Amino acid sequence: MITIPPVDPKWFHQAAAHQSRLTMPAGALGRLLELGQQLCAIQETLHPLVEPSAVVVMAADHGIAAEGVSAYPPEVTAQMVVNFLRGGAAINVLARRQRAAVFVVDMGLRTTLDQSALTPEQRSRLIVSNLGVRGTANFLREPALTREQVVGALETGRTIVAEYLVPAGVRAVALGEMGIGNTTSASALTAALTGLPASAVTGRGTGLSDEALQHKRTVIERSLERHFPGRSGPVAPLEALEAVGGLEIAGLVGVALAGAAHRMVVVLDGFISSVAGLIAAQLEPAARGYLVAGHRSVEIGHGAVLEALGLQPLLDLGLRLGEGTGAVLALTLLTAAADILTEMATFETAGVSQRPDS
Amino acid sequence: MITIPPVDPKWFHQAAAHQSRLTMPAGALGRLLELGQQLCAIQETLHPLVEPSAVVVMAADHGIAAEGVSAYPPEVTAQMVVNFLRGGAAINVLARRQRAAVFVVDMGLRTTLDQSALTPEQRSRLIVSNLGVRGTANFLREPALTREQVVGALETGRTIVAEYLVPAGVRAVALGEMGIGNTTSASALTAALTGLPASAVTGRGTGLSDEALQHKRTVIERSLERHFPGRSGPVAPLEALEAVGGLEIAGLVGVALAGAAHRMVVVLDGFISSVAGLIAAQLEPAARGYLVAGHRSVEIGHGAVLEALGLQPLLDLGLRLGEGTGAVLALTLLTAAADILTEMATFETAGVSQRPDS
Repeated sequence: MITIPPVDPKWFHQAAAHQSRLTMPAGALGRLLELGQQLCAIQETLHPLVEPSAVVVMAADHGIAAEGVSAYPPEVTAQMVVNFLRGGAAINVLARRQRAAVFVVDMGLRTTLDQSALTPEQRSRLIVSNLGVRGTANFLREPALTREQVVGALETGRTIVAEYLVPAGVRAVALGEMGIGNTTSASALTAALTGLPASAVTGRGTGLSDEALQHKRTVIERSLERHFPGRSGPVAPLEALEAVGGLEIAGLVGVALAGAAHRMVVVLDGFISSVAGLIAAQLEPAARGYLVAGHRSVEIGHGAVLEALGLQPLLDLGLRLGEGTGAVLALTLLTAAADILTEMATFETAGVSQRPDS
Repeated sequence: MITIPPVDPKWFHQAAAHQSRLTMPAGALGRLLELGQQLCAIQETLHPLVEPSAVVVMAADHGIAAEGVSAYPPEVTAQMVVNFLRGGAAINVLARRQRAAVFVVDMGLRTTLDQSALTPEQRSRLIVSNLGVRGTANFLREPALTREQVVGALETGRTIVAEYLVPAGVRAVALGEMGIGNTTSASALTAALTGLPASAVTGRGTGLSDEALQHKRTVIERSLERHFPGRSGPVAPLEALEAVGGLEIAGLVGVALAGAAHRMVVVLDGFISSVAGLIAAQLEPAARGYLVAGHRSVEIGHGAVLEALGLQPLLDLGLRLGEGTGAVLALTLLTAAADILTEMATFETAGVSQRPDS
């Protein structure tokens, strides 16, 4: 396994002491100061940097989509991967502004990519996992993945960090995903990992009707009963991934673990990537110190995952897109937190009076 | 008075129709889509721009500070203006990253600026109001301002927009402020404008103790009773400014009105600048359509002001600094909202399937 250095609490204190000398009332920048302290602890410096940053968008298909749990047809996963490669998706637009590099990974697409509209340069952007799996099995009927596939997907995530992010000097990695059916997998995982009932963690995904939502809940409940009959508490993370997981989710667990091992701040996006973050922290508790919750998704299960992680999201904008969009928006706040530490004047150098009682 | 063109609802519909063609599930970017619609309506285009952007930081002193309502001594107002000019304050750091120009305005400082540490270039950045007032009077004892001073401060705000922002082509203006004692003025204004009791809208400012907070509330209650004996409802905005206002607050009202008249989006920061936004909307209801609430301040009165404006803030990060910091952070979300409209692919051009029922 990978070794993750625990973040050292002493850096939080040193960062807070430095922040108290900056020309503003104590604590006046709220969450930005907490974020800044976390960055200092992760990078072991009082002058942290968030750039260069990157978003890893992992895409895969889900056998469970055959049960009619999504408002969109499964071929959309591959179509959106082409869109990512061409730069026309929301994540491309937001990442460009933030100067975050976008790494698109085929973790297991059911459909062959239609590359006819791509330039050679756009084609070269695609990273293809060497797992050779075309999506998960339908977990209502059988395990989504074999143990070997779970381990292989984790390893793929780690390899991408080592081969692409580390050489680029990436300091902050946002987790993104795409996969028709993957809120169903994320809800099933959340129920399994937390012990909560499916109904408490299953939402409308890309926009299900009331009736379809009820169907989705029933599918998840039956699946959990099949794999974990009479479950009465949390299931171990690798077992949960094997039973009801997704290839992109397992891959992102690997990215989170390897990112933390390389002292990157790991920014969670919405429900699906946060489930990956939770699994990473369950596998390696030291990873928790490297995680930041980018935003609070509309998807109901996200709250349970954030609570299990003990994380407060930075943004709450009613987003439910995924792709890493909320995480990349949150990178601007991380950058602000770092800039404040690095660039602000102190009371002493600026000749500003402190409060008389301080 | 200034003429503000009302934003036309038809642009919201046209923008929403355009957004529905972009490659994402309907509504999946939540508040960013609403923001995008507002930008389209303000600029009357489906391809809005947020750049160039600017923050106007207005500073002034408050006679009420003599009553011991702030944790900091009054000379800090002028010291912080020097810090703004030197580029060492939080607002400078955040604005640099966002490429927002910072305009620092002396609206009425009690203390003479110590310019000895400033380079000629830094000195030249200061805009000095020609009102010739060294702060407000102590409104516990007399009206804070004369009617002429209120009107003059509004006019100064308008002039700054016309002379500095319009020539620079500014499309988004963030409102910033600095003034020891100005949360006391803002609380008194909020109570007067909304009819709420002082206790409901008075908070700790830069960090008062329990005892000092009680004193601040008492000062505000007594001041309101002096100027509006037996008040039983909202006070008119110019009367409120005259009685308990601030020069920087009145100046920002002028900036908001003139910004809206020039079709700029006007981004409110925390409590104090939002009071200015409320007054602008009360004076000219058409201004409301140009306002965006950047963030929710910790300061208790801010909620009442946002409710009176009917605005939901974009960020909620526990900020209570002012200077325009929360507004400038929110500019990144406005930029994202504009980029999404301008740069994203449509379902048709990207060859992505829409949901079967759409």
